[in-house]
Amino acid sequence: MTDPRSSSGTEPPRAAGLVLSLDAMGGDKGPQVVVEGLGRFLGKQPDARVLLHGPEAVLRPLVAPFGERVRVVHAPDSVAMTDKPSQVMRNGKDTSMWSAIDAVRDGEAQAVVSCGNTGALMALSMLRLRKIPGVNRPAIACLWPSLNPTNFNVMLDVGADIRADAEDLVLYALMGTTYARQGLGVTRPRVGLLNVGTEEHKGRQELKDAHELIEQAAPKGEFEFVGFVEGGDIPSNRVDVIVTDGFTGNVALKTGEGTATLISTLLREAFARGPLSRMAGLLALPSLQQFRKRVDPRRVNGGVFLGLNGTVIKSHGSADATGVAAALGLAHKLGTAGFAGRLAARVASAVALAQDEVLADGGTTSADGAEAPKER
Amino acid sequence: MTDPRSSSGTEPPRAAGLVLSLDAMGGDKGPQVVVEGLGRFLGKQPDARVLLHGPEAVLRPLVAPFGERVRVVHAPDSVAMTDKPSQVMRNGKDTSMWSAIDAVRDGEAQAVVSCGNTGALMALSMLRLRKIPGVNRPAIACLWPSLNPTNFNVMLDVGADIRADAEDLVLYALMGTTYARQGLGVTRPRVGLLNVGTEEHKGRQELKDAHELIEQAAPKGEFEFVGFVEGGDIPSNRVDVIVTDGFTGNVALKTGEGTATLISTLLREAFARGPLSRMAGLLALPSLQQFRKRVDPRRVNGGVFLGLNGTVIKSHGSADATGVAAALGLAHKLGTAGFAGRLAARVASAVALAQDEVLADGGTTSADGAEAPKER
Repeated sequence: MTDPRSSSGTEPPRAAGLVLSLDAMGGDKGPQVVVEGLGRFLGKQPDARVLLHGPEAVLRPLVAPFGERVRVVHAPDSVAMTDKPSQVMRNGKDTSMWSAIDAVRDGEAQAVVSCGNTGALMALSMLRLRKIPGVNRPAIACLWPSLNPTNFNVMLDVGADIRADAEDLVLYALMGTTYARQGLGVTRPRVGLLNVGTEEHKGRQELKDAHELIEQAAPKGEFEFVGFVEGGDIPSNRVDVIVTDGFTGNVALKTGEGTATLISTLLREAFARGPLSRMAGLLALPSLQQFRKRVDPRRVNGGVFLGLNGTVIKSHGSADATGVAAALGLAHKLGTAGFAGRLAARVASAVALAQDEVLADGGTTSADGAEAPKER
Repeated sequence: MTDPRSSSGTEPPRAAGLVLSLDAMGGDKGPQVVVEGLGRFLGKQPDARVLLHGPEAVLRPLVAPFGERVRVVHAPDSVAMTDKPSQVMRNGKDTSMWSAIDAVRDGEAQAVVSCGNTGALMALSMLRLRKIPGVNRPAIACLWPSLNPTNFNVMLDVGADIRADAEDLVLYALMGTTYARQGLGVTRPRVGLLNVGTEEHKGRQELKDAHELIEQAAPKGEFEFVGFVEGGDIPSNRVDVIVTDGFTGNVALKTGEGTATLISTLLREAFARGPLSRMAGLLALPSLQQFRKRVDPRRVNGGVFLGLNGTVIKSHGSADATGVAAALGLAHKLGTAGFAGRLAARVASAVALAQDEVLADGGTTSADGAEAPKER
């Protein structure tokens, strides 16, 4: 297997362990909770090191216990949840978010994690890291609890852009496939295109066009195209990667979260009604906890921005320490797998293919490596 | 309160009890299950009578126990799930679906229920009942389990049309409001427009336009417009009516169903792991059953077609007897409330308003009656 890092200029050779960049500010619960999550992550990954961005006076006392593994990078300002992306792009140079992204841009870190404002994070990431050549619309990919052997499906786009044309959807299929390989270890991902029916004549024109293009891309991309899938298939074992536009994907993601919240609320109510139910609830606690752990959204916290020169992970704004640790864990996994480089290579090969260039060395087929890299 | 029937030509005065029209064919489980559901419904509504459409030789023995309350209307053919709507419109005259719809068209029944092919049912309903003047795109409304006092929200469109422009969305708001009043008894429904964020500058242009139009329509329509809502709000207590296009609504509906299926599967697995969990599961059974009853999709079976001259209810194709009985119960409720007439009056008043005609008699404000009619 070739060194995946060789195909991307943003990831220099790593000395001892991976370096991640973490935006300490912008989360709903403040830097203390972010640092608490950081501590949990460091406990699990003894070789990892982190650059923590934010106001030095606030952060330095918090990170004292971590010694040399955490370096504070001073950034006096922070991006608020209500800030407009355009404002942040103009005036955000001194924010922790800008600084955290620049650490990846400058090759000091292999991935960046932020709990901040999604729109601003995407805008700054596009500004500072730039899109991979050939990508028109970057996407946000999320992991979705499912009945798959890996326990998760990948869905994209879940909100980077409210539109996607057929060409964007094909690139989403390719990028999502790479993510499923590196993030979940699925060798030959099954890709489905989200629609309102599984018949080929259904849906909007761009979906029919994308159906044809993704079908054509499947053999070379080493994935299986299962065709149109419906909302009910998202958490199923029919697909590994669900491709859709950012409007539909965002509504679906939040609807799924809302449904899970409704169900857990009603379940709690059912077990709180009367003394017998409460006793049954106590006895059922271990089963319910196991169940809760399986669908706990904090454990799959982290939307990955795909299509940029560098790995950017958006943690939920309201993430607690468990959520922040999960997002850092995902960043570590993708950083170790040389994800950004593999993704860029995959997109480059697809763009070359679209230009009818036949690559003589067959290098495209191993661009994102069906096997997980050995160091994982 | 004025007689709502006076505003619609499709509902003649009723002699003794309501008459419903039921398509016996087209469900996945065959006419036996449909008739079983019919039996349960008749047990709950001792005054109701039903016209049952399908092959006489098959149906007559099945309905013998119901005596004169059920009259079989012979229709030799039936619509298959795989039939294309255009084919059914051309060649479907002898189908049970066509016959069942015509009973409403001819004023013999106050509402029609079918478990068959959704596309064909919508196409035939539009062909035979015609759209209400002023409605460009009819919609399908569903009930969604929620944390509301009524236990349900209304969402539309969930799949009649994959597109909706701003004018369609305003009519969806008005029709959904009427449905929430008559179907759920909500006096002053809260209406939300589904989007990917709650800020007014977000989303596609037709959503921004619709936001403005629905806001303008709210005072006259006697509903509260809460603005943009997100997927997570669909099962919440923030809204009673969620307005969206049929593509997004269908994906959201099926995503919600899929999430509920995933959770119940995992919950069952959690309680099946080891003897202690199984015992806890047995003890928790009453609580779990109560919970299951609350979110049981069969109890809210029935998508209502809105925007036609007559009430059409689409039962799930895979509905069992409980589901069929629930769909008939909904048809009975809406038929008793004079729903079709109220809806037509509401749309007519909105169309008149759009033409800047001021209605002198103030009749628009009571078009769909904030109070439930006395005969309910």
